[in-house]
Amino acid sequence: MSETTAPAGDLAARAGKLDAEDELAALRDRFVLDDVTYLDGNSLGALPAAVPDRVADVVRRQWGRLRIRSWDESGWWTAPERIGDRIAPLVGAAPGQIVVGDSTSVNVFKALVAAVRLAREAGGGDRDEILVDATTFPTDGYIARSAARLTGCALRQADPAEVPGALGERTAAVLLNHVDYRTGRLHDLPALTAAVHAAGAPVVWDLCHSAGALPVGLDAHGVDLAVGCTYKYLNGGPGSPAFLYVRRDLQDRFDSPLPGWNSHAEPFGMRPDYAPAPGAVRGRVGTPDILSMLALEAALEVWDGVSVEAVRAKSLALTDFFLECVAAYVPAGRVESLTPAAHSERGSQVALRCSPGLPPSAGPGGALTAEEVMRRLTERGVVGDFRHPDVLRFGFTPLYVGFADVERAARVLAEILA
Amino acid sequence: MSETTAPAGDLAARAGKLDAEDELAALRDRFVLDDVTYLDGNSLGALPAAVPDRVADVVRRQWGRLRIRSWDESGWWTAPERIGDRIAPLVGAAPGQIVVGDSTSVNVFKALVAAVRLAREAGGGDRDEILVDATTFPTDGYIARSAARLTGCALRQADPAEVPGALGERTAAVLLNHVDYRTGRLHDLPALTAAVHAAGAPVVWDLCHSAGALPVGLDAHGVDLAVGCTYKYLNGGPGSPAFLYVRRDLQDRFDSPLPGWNSHAEPFGMRPDYAPAPGAVRGRVGTPDILSMLALEAALEVWDGVSVEAVRAKSLALTDFFLECVAAYVPAGRVESLTPAAHSERGSQVALRCSPGLPPSAGPGGALTAEEVMRRLTERGVVGDFRHPDVLRFGFTPLYVGFADVERAARVLAEILA
Repeated sequence: MSETTAPAGDLAARAGKLDAEDELAALRDRFVLDDVTYLDGNSLGALPAAVPDRVADVVRRQWGRLRIRSWDESGWWTAPERIGDRIAPLVGAAPGQIVVGDSTSVNVFKALVAAVRLAREAGGGDRDEILVDATTFPTDGYIARSAARLTGCALRQADPAEVPGALGERTAAVLLNHVDYRTGRLHDLPALTAAVHAAGAPVVWDLCHSAGALPVGLDAHGVDLAVGCTYKYLNGGPGSPAFLYVRRDLQDRFDSPLPGWNSHAEPFGMRPDYAPAPGAVRGRVGTPDILSMLALEAALEVWDGVSVEAVRAKSLALTDFFLECVAAYVPAGRVESLTPAAHSERGSQVALRCSPGLPPSAGPGGALTAEEVMRRLTERGVVGDFRHPDVLRFGFTPLYVGFADVERAARVLAEILA
Repeated sequence: MSETTAPAGDLAARAGKLDAEDELAALRDRFVLDDVTYLDGNSLGALPAAVPDRVADVVRRQWGRLRIRSWDESGWWTAPERIGDRIAPLVGAAPGQIVVGDSTSVNVFKALVAAVRLAREAGGGDRDEILVDATTFPTDGYIARSAARLTGCALRQADPAEVPGALGERTAAVLLNHVDYRTGRLHDLPALTAAVHAAGAPVVWDLCHSAGALPVGLDAHGVDLAVGCTYKYLNGGPGSPAFLYVRRDLQDRFDSPLPGWNSHAEPFGMRPDYAPAPGAVRGRVGTPDILSMLALEAALEVWDGVSVEAVRAKSLALTDFFLECVAAYVPAGRVESLTPAAHSERGSQVALRCSPGLPPSAGPGGALTAEEVMRRLTERGVVGDFRHPDVLRFGFTPLYVGFADVERAARVLAEILA
């Protein structure tokens, strides 16, 4: 980090002023929080205050008393598309293009196989290569390899910056992460989408680390297909169902490799032959996990009256301030930011490399590993997470993280590394 | 139905005596129930009494206070295999062969594609036909068609009775339902499994309508792969995650089409290359839906000290008694049982065909449709369900349904049809 130093008192005072001026500060009351500085909302969002009572009602009344009637009377059956429409404005999508359900991995599979079929149906019958972000969260790569194997494609990997040069007539589909899970780097969705389209292929975007953190603009940028999880910046709870976006004009040609009875045009007709439903519903598969799904629905109420643009502005202010505090507090050379300095390349997290190879800061045992540093931070009430082998990740959720949290996190980190 | 009639008082008295002698009667207290006669547990099981407080704890304490720490400290990460081991004895499986997660449809896909790969790896490289139960719950057929398409197989359909004759050197995998969702017919799992094995192919059994209702004997009968849902006779709640059984000696060769990071040998190693975990964990995919999954775990506690054999004995007594009451109360010709009379061919439900083509029993509008009959039954506190076009289904869950419920259901049905 830089050699700049500022007295701790100055930065703490700055934090207080920034919090006092923060128009989103009151949103913290929409969550159940304590005095922990929780910077792991990029892994599991905090509990929204509306969720416990809602879940209790779903269990005790909807399931316990209405039982089977709730599929109609409590709106269970239509929850996947209804909640999809609640997520839609957060990622820049008009209604009717998103369904919620299954895990991100399963949705990546649906989207990638469907993308290959779209490319081939559109006259690219000889396209035989799936191109995937080489820095992707691993599961996307594993699933992409399976999708390639099942559709007779080769799997090609390229860093996002090298994707334009790797595109060609063989490209059947491209899978990209909007924000790198490890470094927090934000990729250029509009430009990369345009490049993939210029090569005649559809693109699938993984929004796990951007949905709810920054504007995505799915419709505006003509994205074909997208997936994302809901338990990070959307605060849906552990393992809450993922979402799948299918652009409206592609829906009639969306040919899912997982055509379950929930995506049938007439699900209770119990027909032996499959006839896909119109619209985003075509992306459903089996019976939705109602408890997790309706917890997510309650969680999304924290977004009432909140604009993603305001969230993004605060997110950048938070990560800027964190980098400033780390530079001021942490002795030079102890950590190194992997997160781009440019706003246009930064998601809503900061990743610090904290390698035992960097100057040691421990006692008799020698250098502290990154894993040990994160353990000590957690003990002292600053929760981030660790990613193998040497990365400390700090996620900044503007809905409930304030500037005092940021200053505290950097200060405690400095004390541990001192 | 038969022309036998018995005075209602006699049957009501019989019901009272049977309930008084029922060793499982006290289990009803393990559920939240009211005065409704709930005969739809084959679609959505009733709420177990332990679930609401458990779910509240998962939400408020595990998610709300421990947050990310719960992946370790609250046992979230290992829930799929831990809960799989809780289901195992109910379907005759030794530990370490079942994981819970995803929907039944998604698990059918994993199992069928893996089954085709097993057959081909075992020297059947030219096997190119997936054989599926023609009377299957529709989603299995849709998924089987997709699995066939993606593995270069043809899809062949046959009634379970005709499966032995349809097997051959081309058979790559067979998908069968243990109990027919519509008629309640129980198929001969040991004999059909042996027949498929004799043809050199693996078999996938769908246990949705048998798990928790009758002994399955997966290990004893050498079943290769099986899937099942947990929200029917296992009472896991709406859309609770399904399960996947992979026989121990096949696990090292189980080659999933959905290899997500949760099935990686080192999930937090974040390796770009996939290396499957050993054991049943290989059947996992993405992040498990913890709320639904831990509700299921609490729900499974109702099985403490309960044998599936005792449940089966009561189930047969309940369905026998229902058929007897219907025969006694309902005027001849108004309904017709689609459920086999032989115990060896009967699941835990009774399906009555109630067609407008049968003698009318309505007022000015003419005959009552089956759908209307079920609506009136529900209004009068007897809840079953309707399956297109003319089937009334009544599920008998021995854990909370008694003989007085059975007598009431038949009596109210008779009054509606009178």
